[in-house]
Amino acid sequence: MGISYLYLHPVMSNKYHQIDARELHKFTTDVFLAMGLSQSDAVLASDVLNSADLRGIDSHGVARLSGYVRLWKAKRIKADANPTIIHETHTTATMDGDEGLGLTNAAKAMDIAIEKARVHGSGWVAIQNSNHFGIAAFHAMKALEHNMIGMSLTNASPLVSPTFSKERLLGTNPICYAIPAGERDPVVIDMATSAAANGKLQIAERKGEEIPTGWLQDNEGKNTNDPKGLKGGGSLLTLGSTKEMGSHKGYGLSAFVDIFCGVLSGANYGPWVPPFVSFLPLAPDMPGKGIGHFVGAIRVDGFRPLEEFNKNMDQWIDRFKSSETIEGQEEVIIPGEPEKRQEAIRRKEGIPVIDKVYDDLRDVAKDLGVEFNL
Amino acid sequence: MGISYLYLHPVMSNKYHQIDARELHKFTTDVFLAMGLSQSDAVLASDVLNSADLRGIDSHGVARLSGYVRLWKAKRIKADANPTIIHETHTTATMDGDEGLGLTNAAKAMDIAIEKARVHGSGWVAIQNSNHFGIAAFHAMKALEHNMIGMSLTNASPLVSPTFSKERLLGTNPICYAIPAGERDPVVIDMATSAAANGKLQIAERKGEEIPTGWLQDNEGKNTNDPKGLKGGGSLLTLGSTKEMGSHKGYGLSAFVDIFCGVLSGANYGPWVPPFVSFLPLAPDMPGKGIGHFVGAIRVDGFRPLEEFNKNMDQWIDRFKSSETIEGQEEVIIPGEPEKRQEAIRRKEGIPVIDKVYDDLRDVAKDLGVEFNL
Repeated sequence: MGISYLYLHPVMSNKYHQIDARELHKFTTDVFLAMGLSQSDAVLASDVLNSADLRGIDSHGVARLSGYVRLWKAKRIKADANPTIIHETHTTATMDGDEGLGLTNAAKAMDIAIEKARVHGSGWVAIQNSNHFGIAAFHAMKALEHNMIGMSLTNASPLVSPTFSKERLLGTNPICYAIPAGERDPVVIDMATSAAANGKLQIAERKGEEIPTGWLQDNEGKNTNDPKGLKGGGSLLTLGSTKEMGSHKGYGLSAFVDIFCGVLSGANYGPWVPPFVSFLPLAPDMPGKGIGHFVGAIRVDGFRPLEEFNKNMDQWIDRFKSSETIEGQEEVIIPGEPEKRQEAIRRKEGIPVIDKVYDDLRDVAKDLGVEFNL
Repeated sequence: MGISYLYLHPVMSNKYHQIDARELHKFTTDVFLAMGLSQSDAVLASDVLNSADLRGIDSHGVARLSGYVRLWKAKRIKADANPTIIHETHTTATMDGDEGLGLTNAAKAMDIAIEKARVHGSGWVAIQNSNHFGIAAFHAMKALEHNMIGMSLTNASPLVSPTFSKERLLGTNPICYAIPAGERDPVVIDMATSAAANGKLQIAERKGEEIPTGWLQDNEGKNTNDPKGLKGGGSLLTLGSTKEMGSHKGYGLSAFVDIFCGVLSGANYGPWVPPFVSFLPLAPDMPGKGIGHFVGAIRVDGFRPLEEFNKNMDQWIDRFKSSETIEGQEEVIIPGEPEKRQEAIRRKEGIPVIDKVYDDLRDVAKDLGVEFNL
């Protein structure tokens, strides 16, 4: 569901540039080409970023571009990566991402999972030696056009503490399921397993606001309402926030993601997952290779005729959508609905890029000798 | 992780009978036989209940026995059910549970998933036309001895509202993953997708205590601290509790479980899932058959050599276990650890059965003409 679930208009500043999605896509493609990606990889990586911006997940779109560039400059991302399958059964595989962009690695792994599912009913690919893969939903949603359910997971830089711990041992480790429907839009569940993602802290900090109790603990493990607490050595809390409210469940989910993405693939896990920011050093004695992802696809008609499934999915959606709301709320939201709405708006009206990101893009363009006319 | 995560000694009363697990198993087997189950089904169903009692998940063990009996008497559970596979690919299948006990249906489906995984790397079985399947962990953990990761999901009687809704549209819909390790114990994540399970409300009610904010809303959708609020027409809240804290994520997870178990299998879903209690009527116009489950198994060596995985899993566990705790906490818990400890204690010391349940068992025995000497 992502950030847009809470912020249907997630622009965080009134100083922004409204940029056509296709213009933005062309620009990011040019940047990736300048980094040395192949034409097809540059387009694919741009597809992933563009999808985030269109869906309103501003933290995972073009705002990250300069971060990828810095990681490439720090030689932590390889532009001409050649991902390969290093282990395989009919329905499982492990990909070595060759230090490439997670954006492209995960998308390619998903194609393999889909092909395995086409032949055998389901397909699952773990990816090691990769990097930040963008929004989870892009990869999982690739399954939809094949009438399959898609799944995508990734581990991430450690910022989150398990219940009772004050150490950062987990990433925001998202879980995504994309489920097709009949006449209705697909149900797309895309969620960090922390109570709140880092991006929300940044929004609060920029606005000078406090954050709600239950998002963050300080470096002593005490709850803090100061969004700068994370920079001060604190850690994000898992979904559930406190033991009493079920934070051990969020921890369990995050552990599941870390184990599938890190341990099963041969990537790093826990506190050893490489940081996204290039200025932070890598952890010593890393047990695996890079960041890990896990993607999968499963045929709907592996279980029942597609038409029957579609009919029931439409009924599921209609029943939840028409559910009686609590006071003050206009509608019950179907997972994926806010992003779908946002995409319709932004395809038409363009993508709002805040000044800070806009300036960042101009700097990247200048640095890499890419034309900038956004 | 279940209830025992919070209540390491989950006995809710100081009036109880300490009963040897094998004695309890023999008794439940006799009851299931008296209902007309085959010898092997009666033993298997007892295995599932016994596993819950041993692991400290008191709400899902022998305490439920009379509930199953009542459902059988109400002709909602068939004792001589003959579950069959009605749809299949190499790695997927749908089972019609023939109105049998979920306890046995899910366990049998898991065997099929494991066999598919043995041949093709992974196996997934959706089950329709079933009933309450006991603790999720029993089914998922069957994969462990095969060096596979196991997964089990079930939908359940609607008691939970989606974010912004005041209607009961979801069950506590648990998610379970069982992941093997090397020298260490397996990691077993077994969690309801609601903030708290119904059992915790019952404990609070019995003690005359208030429940924490964030567990329950009344029939107007306002938070209530009265554990009797559920009986008064209220509904449990999803993991995350409030929108600000991420209840839409708990809703998303619960929706995923409901769709996999209900829509994919051809069982009922949402508000149409049959109630566990026999005195509540079935919903009109049910779109599917019975309750649904979803189980799966995936070979660890479908991704990397087992020894490498085991070594890294042990390191994962050791690192999390040795994590620095927040003040007032002695240790960071590995998912599944409390249940494992509880099992070691209870195998030796017996299972504490509270008076209310003990009396219930005696009534069941009398009713069915089963010997009662617990």
